[in-house]
Amino acid sequence: MSKINQISTYLKEHNLDAAFITTPDNVFYVSGFRSNPHERLLGVVIFQDATPLLICPKMEVPDVKSTGWSSDIVGHQDTDNPWHLLKQAIEEKGIQIGQLAIEKSHMTVERLEALQELFPQSSFTRLDDQLNAMRVVKDGRELDILRKAASYADYAIEVGVSEIAEGKTELEILTAIELAMKKKGISHMSFDTMVLSGPKTASPHGKPGDRKIQKGDFVLFDLGVIYEGYCSDITRTVSFGEPSDVQKEVYETVRKAEQAAVDAVKPGVRAMDLDKIARDVITEAGYGEFFTHRLGHGLGISVHEFPSVTGTNEMELSEGMVFTIEPGIYDPSITGVRIEDDVVVTKDGVEVLTKYPKELIIVPTV
Amino acid sequence: MSKINQISTYLKEHNLDAAFITTPDNVFYVSGFRSNPHERLLGVVIFQDATPLLICPKMEVPDVKSTGWSSDIVGHQDTDNPWHLLKQAIEEKGIQIGQLAIEKSHMTVERLEALQELFPQSSFTRLDDQLNAMRVVKDGRELDILRKAASYADYAIEVGVSEIAEGKTELEILTAIELAMKKKGISHMSFDTMVLSGPKTASPHGKPGDRKIQKGDFVLFDLGVIYEGYCSDITRTVSFGEPSDVQKEVYETVRKAEQAAVDAVKPGVRAMDLDKIARDVITEAGYGEFFTHRLGHGLGISVHEFPSVTGTNEMELSEGMVFTIEPGIYDPSITGVRIEDDVVVTKDGVEVLTKYPKELIIVPTV
Repeated sequence: MSKINQISTYLKEHNLDAAFITTPDNVFYVSGFRSNPHERLLGVVIFQDATPLLICPKMEVPDVKSTGWSSDIVGHQDTDNPWHLLKQAIEEKGIQIGQLAIEKSHMTVERLEALQELFPQSSFTRLDDQLNAMRVVKDGRELDILRKAASYADYAIEVGVSEIAEGKTELEILTAIELAMKKKGISHMSFDTMVLSGPKTASPHGKPGDRKIQKGDFVLFDLGVIYEGYCSDITRTVSFGEPSDVQKEVYETVRKAEQAAVDAVKPGVRAMDLDKIARDVITEAGYGEFFTHRLGHGLGISVHEFPSVTGTNEMELSEGMVFTIEPGIYDPSITGVRIEDDVVVTKDGVEVLTKYPKELIIVPTV
Repeated sequence: MSKINQISTYLKEHNLDAAFITTPDNVFYVSGFRSNPHERLLGVVIFQDATPLLICPKMEVPDVKSTGWSSDIVGHQDTDNPWHLLKQAIEEKGIQIGQLAIEKSHMTVERLEALQELFPQSSFTRLDDQLNAMRVVKDGRELDILRKAASYADYAIEVGVSEIAEGKTELEILTAIELAMKKKGISHMSFDTMVLSGPKTASPHGKPGDRKIQKGDFVLFDLGVIYEGYCSDITRTVSFGEPSDVQKEVYETVRKAEQAAVDAVKPGVRAMDLDKIARDVITEAGYGEFFTHRLGHGLGISVHEFPSVTGTNEMELSEGMVFTIEPGIYDPSITGVRIEDDVVVTKDGVEVLTKYPKELIIVPTV
């Protein structure tokens, strides 16, 4: 069932006349059309039975058509009042708006006031939770895209590791990675690429800079790409030259914690259980105080979405959920290590999307 | 007068009890604290006489202090209800909220509902227009920052031009520019850097790619940096090797149009007048149909803000306004050329912030 049909069904079940979706991410989710309209009006109106309509700036109409949207399109110019065009298009369908579902966590007060003026007899209810519930479970097409996004992330790590050399700076390695991705047609990373070395690995939110790679450094990469509108997110930590015993111990502890959480993924397990499984491994090894963040976060059209994998989230996993598993140890006196995979909950277990090796890689110094 | 004091004065004049500012850009504007809180509550409450308060995630409290904010701070954790903490902090000041000014073009319906529950007796009015009116005129400190942001943009063009060489790709040049900026401590550009060559210059929204620079190409750079929270934005077009006569003519037409608009800037002139002055030069030269966008846009904390320099904006310029002037000709049969400066309206004329030369630069091919 298409996303539009799912929402139509929801409208019928809840006696709502229409849904007005305006978050760019959710417009993309239901229509396949991605755009950042800034202050201009962009939205999709979905009805119980009538065909949906998409309203957007007029200059974007050809782009909407080229994404395959075959239903109604209302294009507006800067000299138009887009709200009047919207009302007109709805009236032409012969539909009365009594109850309208909107995204209350996104729609501005100014826009609600415009809708209230347009439909003074209507009441407005939340659509947010329904959309979140839909987006948290990925369908087959979305999973195919996410697999590909993850494989580009694997490739980016490969490039980064191959660039490591004595005296090269974090920024030079970062730049080489992003150039390689652009050459593959990836124009945007899903967040600021992180390349940290030596003591800087111990800062979970460190910023790449002019520090030069030295023998004995751990080098931490955290990055992801946007592919066909979906995000990947991977972290790997490698050693430049032979690591010390305690560096190895920290690395192995994180690796075991990560693997234990990955192995525990299946429908019915709670998000908080995964966090506990990884945290227990790290705590038992004596590094508990240095694992200072949640285990992971959902991944999809947004790089951070539901489910949040925290120590308090009781949400039960179900088939099709996609999220990161990324424990870390940040001990300023030794090093920082984080290992992160993107995983999907399958019918009876887990599929790991990111495939770059997790055994400690030692990059030779000569 | 500080931004906070200006807003307090506005509250008194309009009989409003408080202003609640929640746009990250405007929080930065009034407090100096920049943060992207995602879905977490961040805001500044300003009163008629009482000291203001800032509410933010608890982990950001040290960052707020380090920006020099010396007034009240309410930090909230994920386990807190931030709205209750907000109400409590206001009540501790002995203030009753009857009329609250909010940013209706930014605040979500969900948040308004939270405020209505918190202050059921209150009414909510627009603060947006007052904030826009304040932000459109820059003060001396802001102008100093914008000057510096513009000088980094000049430097980025210098790097880009020095990187031009036969067979190099647009993406390689782009990467060299961004690496050079990172080495100067500039971590973010104000938008996706544009490096276009040859026929691609004729697309105002083209995307840099793998095209290799060839003799006779025009190369167009459009870029800007974020420096201390403020944006710059510059465009220059240069020639790789000797240009043809018609390329020179297109270039000189854009240069004259740009210079004519720059020279016309002073208080009292309308934004639309500037657009017309530049457009007339291009139209008279026979290229009017190929200048397909507005002349420019305001510049500050946002890379696109007020005033919009269009053919229909009647707003009169006043001292301290900052905007771009960026005419272009995009003739697919010849080439594309755009020249863009950042300018400030001074007491009796104009100050041009971007200083990279505008005479046609011919990069030697050997």
